[in-house]
Amino acid sequence: MINYPIKRKAQVKTTNYANLGMTLESDIEASNTYYLNHGIAVIHKKPTPIQVVSVSYPARNKAKITEAYYKTPSTTDFNGVFEGHYIDFDAKETNSKTSMPLKNVHPHQIDHLRAVSKQKGIAFLIVHFKVYNEYFLLPAQILFEYWDEQHTEKGRKSIPYETFKEKAFLIPFGFQPRLDYLKIIKQSFL
Amino acid sequence: MINYPIKRKAQVKTTNYANLGMTLESDIEASNTYYLNHGIAVIHKKPTPIQVVSVSYPARNKAKITEAYYKTPSTTDFNGVFEGHYIDFDAKETNSKTSMPLKNVHPHQIDHLRAVSKQKGIAFLIVHFKVYNEYFLLPAQILFEYWDEQHTEKGRKSIPYETFKEKAFLIPFGFQPRLDYLKIIKQSFL
Repeated sequence: MINYPIKRKAQVKTTNYANLGMTLESDIEASNTYYLNHGIAVIHKKPTPIQVVSVSYPARNKAKITEAYYKTPSTTDFNGVFEGHYIDFDAKETNSKTSMPLKNVHPHQIDHLRAVSKQKGIAFLIVHFKVYNEYFLLPAQILFEYWDEQHTEKGRKSIPYETFKEKAFLIPFGFQPRLDYLKIIKQSFL
Repeated sequence: MINYPIKRKAQVKTTNYANLGMTLESDIEASNTYYLNHGIAVIHKKPTPIQVVSVSYPARNKAKITEAYYKTPSTTDFNGVFEGHYIDFDAKETNSKTSMPLKNVHPHQIDHLRAVSKQKGIAFLIVHFKVYNEYFLLPAQILFEYWDEQHTEKGRKSIPYETFKEKAFLIPFGFQPRLDYLKIIKQSFL
């Protein structure tokens, strides 16, 4: 028996914004699939909202969309249920060594996470600091503090990496699930 | 001050399947908007999943999707959080006077609702009997019973209207919210 080494594709650098966060997103989706298949939780990524303008029917029962546009989502990307608890979060990546810029978060996402928190849902971000290859679970409450302060005198336009080290939770990257963020929810939030 | 009467557009009959359930869906969405605006719950309809095949960029930063197809959703249409509880449901309409055909429900929706129930989420259908103009909240448990029995000897391919009368919950149609399904959840599920 010979174990052939697995060749990894060379990583392609791209400036296409649609691909930003692709890896983080697929790591989270793989973790969610693991959770689902093991009866641990039911968490899905919401489809990207698309405004359909025209549809043609080249074949019976087969609708072909010929003109459509991406819409701004009104919520976060991920939600679901874990042992009776409502889970809601978004995934963010940053190339910065020092902080996560608040402009990575849309105002409607803040509104949504606040509404979820008021309904006693568990709201957070998963933030990937690419230069350190570290993944953090940032409770929404800390995000709100920085968001609300950004326009005040002592406010800043980003959340420092130091804050992540001190107040967020490091998610170890593993084999399965790749990002066991629910372990942190269980240990520290429930 | 003159109050001009509001003219309602004549209702257009259509066989376009994309419009089936349009009214029920918008009634539920209006109810969800009411819940959101009044801080009662955060429940959204998930976007329809679409497989994008080609995108053109006719203008800077403006992506135009030129070829795409509808995908089969892997979950139900609606989910969210109500006072800490995870809520998950789908909306179904039927023209039948006697029953709701089980073929209105996709097998993957059954799988999803089962997984949600196991995670202690609140899972149900909202079913509109159009001929009676009645709306029912059908607990997923009853749906599962009929689903599992359909291939047995005494099984049937639909849930009788009588079962709705006896075991489901009638949702009164009102002004705001139009369909106060969370009132039933609060009274009978929590």
